[in-house]
Amino acid sequence: MDKSIKEIINSYQDQKEIELKGWITSNRGNNKIRFISLNDGSTILNIQIVFNQEKFDLEEIEKWKIGSALNIRGIFKLTPNAKQSCEIEAIEANNISPTDDSFPIQKQEINLETLREIPHIRHRTNIFRAIMLIRSTLAKEIHNFFDSEGFMYLHTPIITSNDGEGAGEGFIVDDENKELFFSKKATLAVTGQLHGESYATGFTKIYTFGPTFRAEKSNTKRHAAEFWMIEPEVAFYELNDIIHLSDRMLKYVIKKTLEKHPEEFKFLDERQEGRLIKNLETFLNKKLQILEYSQAIEMLKKVKEKFVEKNIEYGLDLATEHEKYLADEVFQGPVAIINYPKEFKAFYMYLNNDGKSVAAFDLLVPGVGELIGGSQREVDIEKLKSRMSYYNISIEEMQWYLDLRRFGDAGSSGFGLGFERLVMYVTGIDNIRDSIPYPRTFGNLKM
Amino acid sequence: MDKSIKEIINSYQDQKEIELKGWITSNRGNNKIRFISLNDGSTILNIQIVFNQEKFDLEEIEKWKIGSALNIRGIFKLTPNAKQSCEIEAIEANNISPTDDSFPIQKQEINLETLREIPHIRHRTNIFRAIMLIRSTLAKEIHNFFDSEGFMYLHTPIITSNDGEGAGEGFIVDDENKELFFSKKATLAVTGQLHGESYATGFTKIYTFGPTFRAEKSNTKRHAAEFWMIEPEVAFYELNDIIHLSDRMLKYVIKKTLEKHPEEFKFLDERQEGRLIKNLETFLNKKLQILEYSQAIEMLKKVKEKFVEKNIEYGLDLATEHEKYLADEVFQGPVAIINYPKEFKAFYMYLNNDGKSVAAFDLLVPGVGELIGGSQREVDIEKLKSRMSYYNISIEEMQWYLDLRRFGDAGSSGFGLGFERLVMYVTGIDNIRDSIPYPRTFGNLKM
Repeated sequence: MDKSIKEIINSYQDQKEIELKGWITSNRGNNKIRFISLNDGSTILNIQIVFNQEKFDLEEIEKWKIGSALNIRGIFKLTPNAKQSCEIEAIEANNISPTDDSFPIQKQEINLETLREIPHIRHRTNIFRAIMLIRSTLAKEIHNFFDSEGFMYLHTPIITSNDGEGAGEGFIVDDENKELFFSKKATLAVTGQLHGESYATGFTKIYTFGPTFRAEKSNTKRHAAEFWMIEPEVAFYELNDIIHLSDRMLKYVIKKTLEKHPEEFKFLDERQEGRLIKNLETFLNKKLQILEYSQAIEMLKKVKEKFVEKNIEYGLDLATEHEKYLADEVFQGPVAIINYPKEFKAFYMYLNNDGKSVAAFDLLVPGVGELIGGSQREVDIEKLKSRMSYYNISIEEMQWYLDLRRFGDAGSSGFGLGFERLVMYVTGIDNIRDSIPYPRTFGNLKM
Repeated sequence: MDKSIKEIINSYQDQKEIELKGWITSNRGNNKIRFISLNDGSTILNIQIVFNQEKFDLEEIEKWKIGSALNIRGIFKLTPNAKQSCEIEAIEANNISPTDDSFPIQKQEINLETLREIPHIRHRTNIFRAIMLIRSTLAKEIHNFFDSEGFMYLHTPIITSNDGEGAGEGFIVDDENKELFFSKKATLAVTGQLHGESYATGFTKIYTFGPTFRAEKSNTKRHAAEFWMIEPEVAFYELNDIIHLSDRMLKYVIKKTLEKHPEEFKFLDERQEGRLIKNLETFLNKKLQILEYSQAIEMLKKVKEKFVEKNIEYGLDLATEHEKYLADEVFQGPVAIINYPKEFKAFYMYLNNDGKSVAAFDLLVPGVGELIGGSQREVDIEKLKSRMSYYNISIEEMQWYLDLRRFGDAGSSGFGLGFERLVMYVTGIDNIRDSIPYPRTFGNLKM
């Protein structure tokens, strides 16, 4: 295989003959010389191919359109005095898949909303090249992080008979004839946590990284019907341990991804007036703060005039405006809010000694608000049953989950990180539809 | 966090005081001394904890049952003359989650079929500990392999409006009220390939690793309704390139996984009379053979009496018995069969110049038969349309896919590897239900 353009730019020798392939991103010049920028997706950088009239019919080359696939043989040249560090003087060139002007990506910038109509093409713009390369690296670094900490990678089931938190947002799955293919009602997983707990009891440290689903009929910038989730679960961990795991993970993957994508971050940073890299570096250098929910309420009360929801009392389910205020203005860095009132948290969370709060945490980060939610899990079967009744969750269906507590489950803790939220945070884009290759939302299923 | 038992066994210093946690796998001894084997899932090896009557009430310790979670403080001791290389002399011990005799995993071996009834518990046997640890490492090494070759990791959509190969085996997805949540019919992906092709056109080298689904009403040892698939797609690759990628990938992941799990492979190998490791090593050392489908037919014809299906002519869709004969007996190693008749291959495969075969390959391995299937993709829009008509695939629904060919798609190649098939091959287990934590098959949805 030929070298990628990223490898060529980073490591090639001056005057060496090479072959490469890629797609045209621009074609300019005159009747003596033409310059074609070529990109192969290995980096957002293009490499410049120079065509001289001595070797090429430039009238023909001029007709080569943006998006066409080229096969090039040429001489690599370092150009220390030019804007680009190198270029390739073409010896031989073939347009092996010519396009015409109907190719949607042309010179002028297209707004993100228009690009959402063409998810099969939009990755051939600079912005989506940058986002999707960073997304890929974030995913790989998440695997690397958990591997470095000795975690087992677990595939929890996608089709399940439990709907996790009892929120009733599960999609129904059946075959074409709607004949109960699985002999019972089947839904798409909203979480892998419950199955994850079963494997943590035995393997100690496990994590999942798979798709999850919510049939939520809301169309916000932050919600999708299909999204990927990372869910570690660690036996013997308590709330404080899992909070620090989440902080360690985020710092690891963000640091590695920044190192691997200087060009992509530079591009995104320029579009965001230099805020992006600064924010991420601030995050890396800030020590995680931990704050009791009850303390958070006291802090918010004092400035309640700032918010749309001004009725701030113990028991309030914090809204994004409150979370953003805490992360952006008060702490200016990551903050974990802990020990929430049990009423708006899931049944499986550990009931604290006060009888009214659970050992849960939400990790808030500047600019985004909640990025991660997690908890220590309840081990007392009677408390679990009582909480399940409160949420109308069938005890019979969940008997297997309750049984884990009889079979050596000494308590575990875990969290969920919505992967698209992480991509949004790290790339600075503000719509979840631009963080995933083919977004699925209410009423919207393209390709 | 405490060290894992794997770390303790591999690297601990004699006479050092340590703390550890894990679950009881056996408890034996007398009224002077007791030995508890402890496992934490980091390895299939147990570590032996020694309890002396001077420090412990051994009548109490005797009551601690298999499956209970312990918290131990003790002195690590190397025992070069004993069966096990080391043990821990307990100083302090707590049974933090006692079990009773209802814990399903006891000393006697349970058959695999019975264990399938308790997927939330079965990983606490040696055999499932070994299988699932190997599965986890195989998954990680697949990511490592593609990363080392410069591939982008792509998440293709799970909910889609295409059913891929037109086989009509898609599960239908909708919300609780069956109101067409996505405003059109939605199915679970049977492949990520078509979306993968869109990203290969632009990023050059991509791979997917995600769940795929088939609503097939068959209950064989080799089929599941939900399984994970790895699908690389490489722009500019032709058939031969992609075959060699598949061979390189398999050898890489198998080699790394063998290196990382000596104990788990030793255990599985002993259950299989020493065939497993030998087979895998033979595979690693054998050069991949490539054989024309038409030649395969000639070879099979000569020994047709061996088979149930004896009518062996050009046009036959090879059955498992034929594939196994070629891999197990003729080549005794991996063999790629290429250029199949177009009639039983998918519409997107590249039509060869003979007009009757397509540039497809199946990679067969001894003991399993087909492990991988792939092809070079057709780039000619008219040929694609004609093949789509043949299979009754809607051209309108697939216009976006056809458009890729107008937008710089210079041809790509890819393959699909069913991850559970790989787990079966590498662990030597013969039922797909034992290769995935929570198997989903026709009529069967446990937990």
